[in-house]
Amino acid sequence: MQDFSQLHAIFDRTRGYINRFMSIIQPIVDAAQDEHTRLYYHHILEEEEQRLGRLEQLVPHLEELAANQKSDQLSDRELSRLLSDINLERFGLHNFREHLELSLYEFRDEETRLDLDGMREKTHADYLLVKDIMSRLSERFSDVYHADLTDHDEGHDVHQVDHLKASAGVASVTSHPAAPASVPGKKGLTVGSLKGLH
Amino acid sequence: MQDFSQLHAIFDRTRGYINRFMSIIQPIVDAAQDEHTRLYYHHILEEEEQRLGRLEQLVPHLEELAANQKSDQLSDRELSRLLSDINLERFGLHNFREHLELSLYEFRDEETRLDLDGMREKTHADYLLVKDIMSRLSERFSDVYHADLTDHDEGHDVHQVDHLKASAGVASVTSHPAAPASVPGKKGLTVGSLKGLH
Repeated sequence: MQDFSQLHAIFDRTRGYINRFMSIIQPIVDAAQDEHTRLYYHHILEEEEQRLGRLEQLVPHLEELAANQKSDQLSDRELSRLLSDINLERFGLHNFREHLELSLYEFRDEETRLDLDGMREKTHADYLLVKDIMSRLSERFSDVYHADLTDHDEGHDVHQVDHLKASAGVASVTSHPAAPASVPGKKGLTVGSLKGLH
Repeated sequence: MQDFSQLHAIFDRTRGYINRFMSIIQPIVDAAQDEHTRLYYHHILEEEEQRLGRLEQLVPHLEELAANQKSDQLSDRELSRLLSDINLERFGLHNFREHLELSLYEFRDEETRLDLDGMREKTHADYLLVKDIMSRLSERFSDVYHADLTDHDEGHDVHQVDHLKASAGVASVTSHPAAPASVPGKKGLTVGSLKGLH
């Protein structure tokens, strides 16, 4: 029961993060001076939109399960489906962490960088928590569900890198030589200055 | 019935494309000279790995449905689950198209560029076909399933861009100023030269 409450809190939080992340990235798409930059951030936003669409279904479902203690009444098929959906969103958290890390290489202003890194840190902690919960749930319900609990944090050195540090001295990655110079103002965008865009 | 045969052929093809795409991109990760490049392509590969994992379940399921004409025997819940899984892979095809387009900006040799663009063209056609099939199936089974048939090809100018052309004159996007110069040899990698890596 407590597992479903925790999962609800995690996916509700990440839903809020997606909106915050979109408000930071959308202006980069809008101000893009070349097709690669536009495609790059458009693509990241689109994946997060797809995730948001799935979470709009999953979060209320988890809330109901947590509130009404209904998880015991789920059929085997319903339970298997639910665990599969949660596992997909475990991957979603992992991918979001990487979207946040990739975005660190775009921004030079400290406020945005710290905001992105704060979301990254919490998202990583949430990912690990969902992994633990999934491992517990798939053991408890091993008769109806076998999770692919691939750990996306082991075996890849890239996940050990502190991308806040690594990105600190790098000029915006999308202002590559063949592209027109990027808009100087866009590096100065802050979460605060974007609030009006929603 | 024919729908499931067609879906099987499409997702079987894209499964092969994922492996071909990975053999083109993995050497870029391995030869990456900076953390951003490594993270960027690692991230794309990881998302395709996740998709491959899902397709390893879906493709045999579709094959069985197509071969044994079993789709009439599916319960409402099973059918709803199946349509939801297919719809997720519709998004997967769309995202793969963008991974292919983004990768066009990395390579300068014609053989690799035409291979990527060929997969992009077929993937886009497959995406449109799955959209049609899904729209037909969700109408036919409207009592058990309501698809989110968001069209990811309308309303975004970026999808009208010919990225093969747009990327033609651009230096590798990951050889940005602050990063060490990229390995000259990596631009010369071809699918042919990578066959030994599998």
